Amino acid sequence: MTVVVKLGGHLISAERIQAARIKEYAEIFTRINRSGTGLVIVTGGGDGAREYRDAATELGGSQVFRDELGVMVTRINAHLLICALGKRAYPAVPTSTQQIREFASSGRIVVSGGLQPAQSTVAVSALAAESVGAEKLVLATDVEGVYSKDPKKHADARLLKEMTFKQLEKMILEQPQLPGEYELFDLLSVRILQRSKIPCSVVDGRVPSNVEKALAGKKVGTIIKP
Amino acid sequence: MTVVVKLGGHLISAERIQAARIKEYAEIFTRINRSGTGLVIVTGGGDGAREYRDAATELGGSQVFRDELGVMVTRINAHLLICALGKRAYPAVPTSTQQIREFASSGRIVVSGGLQPAQSTVAVSALAAESVGAEKLVLATDVEGVYSKDPKKHADARLLKEMTFKQLEKMILEQPQLPGEYELFDLLSVRILQRSKIPCSVVDGRVPSNVEKALAGKKVGTIIKP
Amino acid sequence: MTVVVKLGGHLISAERIQAARIKEYAEIFTRINRSGTGLVIVTGGGDGAREYRDAATELGGSQVFRDELGVMVTRINAHLLICALGKRAYPAVPTSTQQIREFASSGRIVVSGGLQPAQSTVAVSALAAESVGAEKLVLATDVEGVYSKDPKKHADARLLKEMTFKQLEKMILEQPQLPGEYELFDLLSVRILQRSKIPCSVVDGRVPSNVEKALAGKKVGTIIKP
Amino acid sequence: MTVVVKLGGHLISAERIQAARIKEYAEIFTRINRSGTGLVIVTGGGDGAREYRDAATELGGSQVFRDELGVMVTRINAHLLICALGKRAYPAVPTSTQQIREFASSGRIVVSGGLQPAQSTVAVSALAAESVGAEKLVLATDVEGVYSKDPKKHADARLLKEMTFKQLEKMILEQPQLPGEYELFDLLSVRILQRSKIPCSVVDGRVPSNVEKALAGKKVGTIIKP
Amino acid sequence: MTVVVKLGGHLISAERIQAARIKEYAEIFTRINRSGTGLVIVTGGGDGAREYRDAATELGGSQVFRDELGVMVTRINAHLLICALGKRAYPAVPTSTQQIREFASSGRIVVSGGLQPAQSTVAVSALAAESVGAEKLVLATDVEGVYSKDPKKHADARLLKEMTFKQLEKMILEQPQLPGEYELFDLLSVRILQRSKIPCSVVDGRVPSNVEKALAGKKVGTIIKP
Amino acid sequence: MTVVVKLGGHLISAERIQAARIKEYAEIFTRINRSGTGLVIVTGGGDGAREYRDAATELGGSQVFRDELGVMVTRINAHLLICALGKRAYPAVPTSTQQIREFASSGRIVVSGGLQPAQSTVAVSALAAESVGAEKLVLATDVEGVYSKDPKKHADARLLKEMTFKQLEKMILEQPQLPGEYELFDLLSVRILQRSKIPCSVVDGRVPSNVEKALAGKKVGTIIKP
Repeated sequence: MTVVVKLGGHLISAERIQAARIKEYAEIFTRINRSGTGLVIVTGGGDGAREYRDAATELGGSQVFRDELGVMVTRINAHLLICALGKRAYPAVPTSTQQIREFASSGRIVVSGGLQPAQSTVAVSALAAESVGAEKLVLATDVEGVYSKDPKKHADARLLKEMTFKQLEKMILEQPQLPGEYELFDLLSVRILQRSKIPCSVVDGRVPSNVEKALAGKKVGTIIKP
Repeated sequence: MTVVVKLGGHLISAERIQAARIKEYAEIFTRINRSGTGLVIVTGGGDGAREYRDAATELGGSQVFRDELGVMVTRINAHLLICALGKRAYPAVPTSTQQIREFASSGRIVVSGGLQPAQSTVAVSALAAESVGAEKLVLATDVEGVYSKDPKKHADARLLKEMTFKQLEKMILEQPQLPGEYELFDLLSVRILQRSKIPCSVVDGRVPSNVEKALAGKKVGTIIKP
Repeated sequence: MTVVVKLGGHLISAERIQAARIKEYAEIFTRINRSGTGLVIVTGGGDGAREYRDAATELGGSQVFRDELGVMVTRINAHLLICALGKRAYPAVPTSTQQIREFASSGRIVVSGGLQPAQSTVAVSALAAESVGAEKLVLATDVEGVYSKDPKKHADARLLKEMTFKQLEKMILEQPQLPGEYELFDLLSVRILQRSKIPCSVVDGRVPSNVEKALAGKKVGTIIKP
Repeated sequence: MTVVVKLGGHLISAERIQAARIKEYAEIFTRINRSGTGLVIVTGGGDGAREYRDAATELGGSQVFRDELGVMVTRINAHLLICALGKRAYPAVPTSTQQIREFASSGRIVVSGGLQPAQSTVAVSALAAESVGAEKLVLATDVEGVYSKDPKKHADARLLKEMTFKQLEKMILEQPQLPGEYELFDLLSVRILQRSKIPCSVVDGRVPSNVEKALAGKKVGTIIKP
Repeated sequence: MTVVVKLGGHLISAERIQAARIKEYAEIFTRINRSGTGLVIVTGGGDGAREYRDAATELGGSQVFRDELGVMVTRINAHLLICALGKRAYPAVPTSTQQIREFASSGRIVVSGGLQPAQSTVAVSALAAESVGAEKLVLATDVEGVYSKDPKKHADARLLKEMTFKQLEKMILEQPQLPGEYELFDLLSVRILQRSKIPCSVVDGRVPSNVEKALAGKKVGTIIKP
Repeated sequence: MTVVVKLGGHLISAERIQAARIKEYAEIFTRINRSGTGLVIVTGGGDGAREYRDAATELGGSQVFRDELGVMVTRINAHLLICALGKRAYPAVPTSTQQIREFASSGRIVVSGGLQPAQSTVAVSALAAESVGAEKLVLATDVEGVYSKDPKKHADARLLKEMTFKQLEKMILEQPQLPGEYELFDLLSVRILQRSKIPCSVVDGRVPSNVEKALAGKKVGTIIKP
């Protein structure tokens, strides 16, 4: 069995590099991998990426430039996680879906950053899941899951325990952004998961054990099903 | 001034390779480039790509595999157009947005195929336009432009001479597919053009001179504006 | 033990992609590999390659350009076979003899296309055999083997059950082309096999089980010995 | 004439990305390049690099890992400066001395980050200078130049207006670190400049015009001569 | 106009590196290039390559390994000639026919070594000529040209002033090796030149001015015509 | 356990390629690897490298050019040792510290040459040791170890059986070159080993069994400890 975990950028880089949390994740991933589960991790960019993107805009750079800088930061984050994983990790960061499969064929944990401009790292994790034939995708974010409405604005917003990709797609199309979380999901990501029927959990990754629970099939955060 | 032209796959490969049309396009692009206009061309896959994608599905391949094969075919098409352009073209097919800029910095015509899975060549042409700071994007397809409804189903469908990106986005979101043309545009492509304010013409590329007209600012096909 | 199999282009692409046959081959290769035999497969280009090569000529391209396009098509064919082989195959197409060894060192089935202009895929399969120290090369073609004369022109042409490389070389040198099959063998390929003393079987690959028989040492098609 | 400028990391990334200063430098480099002078810029890592290096140590990574992360950050800084320079810059970051020459042969401004572990970006700028045959190297740092003693500890420390590489080498060998600036220079860098007889200026880059002055031959900061 | 010159390996490396001769050639190539003629140079391996190839055999390496080592040596020779040519040369050694065109598109002198196993550097020079559309190929060797018979064995052997590719091909096929020169030409090389109708001169490169004469259309060595 | 062995260039290439010695080393490395010890070998350049470097200088090349040529020769030497090691070796020569780890993750013997200009292969071996977390580094040279003084000049020079990195560093700093051996060690190499606390043996590699002894912990040559 192979699973894909997306580590939201802010879990890695928020004001400063979250070394302690990365360490905790490295221990969890080692434990999961040791028990025979193949792992592809996709790291986001976080505040480090945001800072470079903002600087690019200030310097008159195009959106493509902004995104290229963002991808570069996600790859440093990936390299740092590889550092923490030691010999369990494949020692290089892939740059294409094909290379993700190539590195995964070694049996080691593959850690990828973003792949290219105009594509979120959530979409990369969905593509990675499709590419290696993963049975599950866990999105570790810095919110508790998907909400019915923006919880910051609506007192009656509630955490959705379970939903379908169809429902999620409708939500994205109806609103400029998902409640409570700008760009938690984009349309492309939902459609990739939907077409490949890969179940997905959105969990609060600030508590790393949530990822382990979601992979073990426990009810945590939001479960999205085909 | 630099412009981007997307050559729809079926203009290049429909049942068989359309060598005569490629030749005609090579002459037009040479003429445009000689007059001092920088050119990035993006080639689609056409029937050749469709055939490989279908075979992949028949062989149990994932969507990612299908797309990788599709990208490979678009790159052969690009190489063939480079062949037709001779020394006017940069002699290699780029594999990233950064490489598109790198090759374009030579002053020669750059011919790109697709860049990666889960991304249409229309989206690539929009990214290329953003990346090189193009002033215009021309989509050469095998229909006459964007219609108000699907002309195959509705007798009263009419060709839209002009529209905004907002209107186009609304059209895409309201309907599973654009009237008269499946996947002429995807959401990503529209949003890239919109955010970068790059005007776009959709023309009937079966008549190559339409591309030249559109680049010259003449009214042909559908003009989409920010 | 490692063996090399060359899949003639027309077995893969003849008018259209032969998905059913590719599937059959994937099953055979999986069976052989599962029993402990290392495999390097080299795929030809077939009609797809021919079509691009012809288009290049029509567009005034040099022979080198024609060949480059041909190599690109053989690599798509290789990628498609990798798709069919799933996790048994190394997930990338090699681009040099050194990379063939590198990928083969993973223990997985390696699928290569052509390597470069002015070199047939038969020559590539001979070089691959030499490079990985293969014990046997099987050429799966769309004829039954090597004939004494061109069977289309001579009623008394007969299939040669066995011959030496010396005899084959003489045949090639005496005649502009081999009886019954233009470019079944070129001089370079014969000389590579001869110098490395790698026995070779030429079999009718339209019946995929022939490849399995030849690898099992059964008499089928033409056996060429040092 | 070609010159090399090393931009100290803290000029680019100190607590946050210094977009305004990068902009100012982009204008200066554009002016210099427009007047016909070839430019190779080498960017340091600054606080961003330091943060990743520290995280690697916290995660048990080797010094090599620390350095690899540092190199990655310097390359993002280089990419950001390329963004600011627009079409004057070669649109890719080189990864070897040979590639620095390759990109420089385009006539555009080349922006490099670090090249590899265990090598300071000052050493990279010295190698770049040697490699492209530069006539001068300017090190833009965040101090005013080389001091006779550590100015933070010694009230009588004075800025050295001029010195020889021999003197600088002696200084480095006698003391664990250079006065006023840890790792302003390492032994390798001094020896590269010395053997190639490339004069070097150390200037306070917090005032970007100092770089322009040094390149124009004006007396600013410390001038080091063969 | 573009021309290709093949520098026989023994002109570069014979017992020791022939630095003085390389210098002389660099001056000639600079002169030719300065007058507006595009140049692609292909360097052979000479004694250095022979030594590595012999060692590989002694160590039980395959012919492919021998050839790979040979290619590596020809590339060092190419890099050394690039060193001698300074800024006139493109600063990298190409590794494919496509890259030869890519580097040639810069307008600088391109210096290539071999490209891959089982292919002589004469064949590479013929492919390079075809690939860039060269008008002439000059082979600088360490004999005076093509002889009617092996001059070492036959007193009546005479230097052929002119011949056709057909005659040369016949000569190669009739005899295991060309008179007076083992492997001056192989079958592949002749056929490439023949099909592309590129005239070829074989001259004594120990006198570098012969290359200049041949390029100027003067009668020197053996001229081979379509 | 993983160990790193540096094979001094003159053990491989001294006037001519030392095929017999390379064979002997291949047998030793095979034996060590078979017993479960991971191996990274770093090959020097020897007389072959010196010859190319001298030629570069004669041709007016920069020190960087000299070094690039030297790196290329060390890589051929590495490829030759890979040839001798057969399937025990990873079939490619790494070009960065990250790639050394990547290839080492295959479990095969990794053979590296130099990595880049201005860095000795001793420094590469120290970086490789740090990078893969090696427990020991053995430098096989053509002297018996480190001497107290230059044995060629001082009759009372004695072989040092054991010393610390501090002592070695002091020796290097005090004298322009190490006694008895120019460039046996450079400052960078000592400091890398020191910071990573990797014990190092300097042995006379002209007797290959010395390497085996040193790896087995026997007293041979000079042992340098943290």
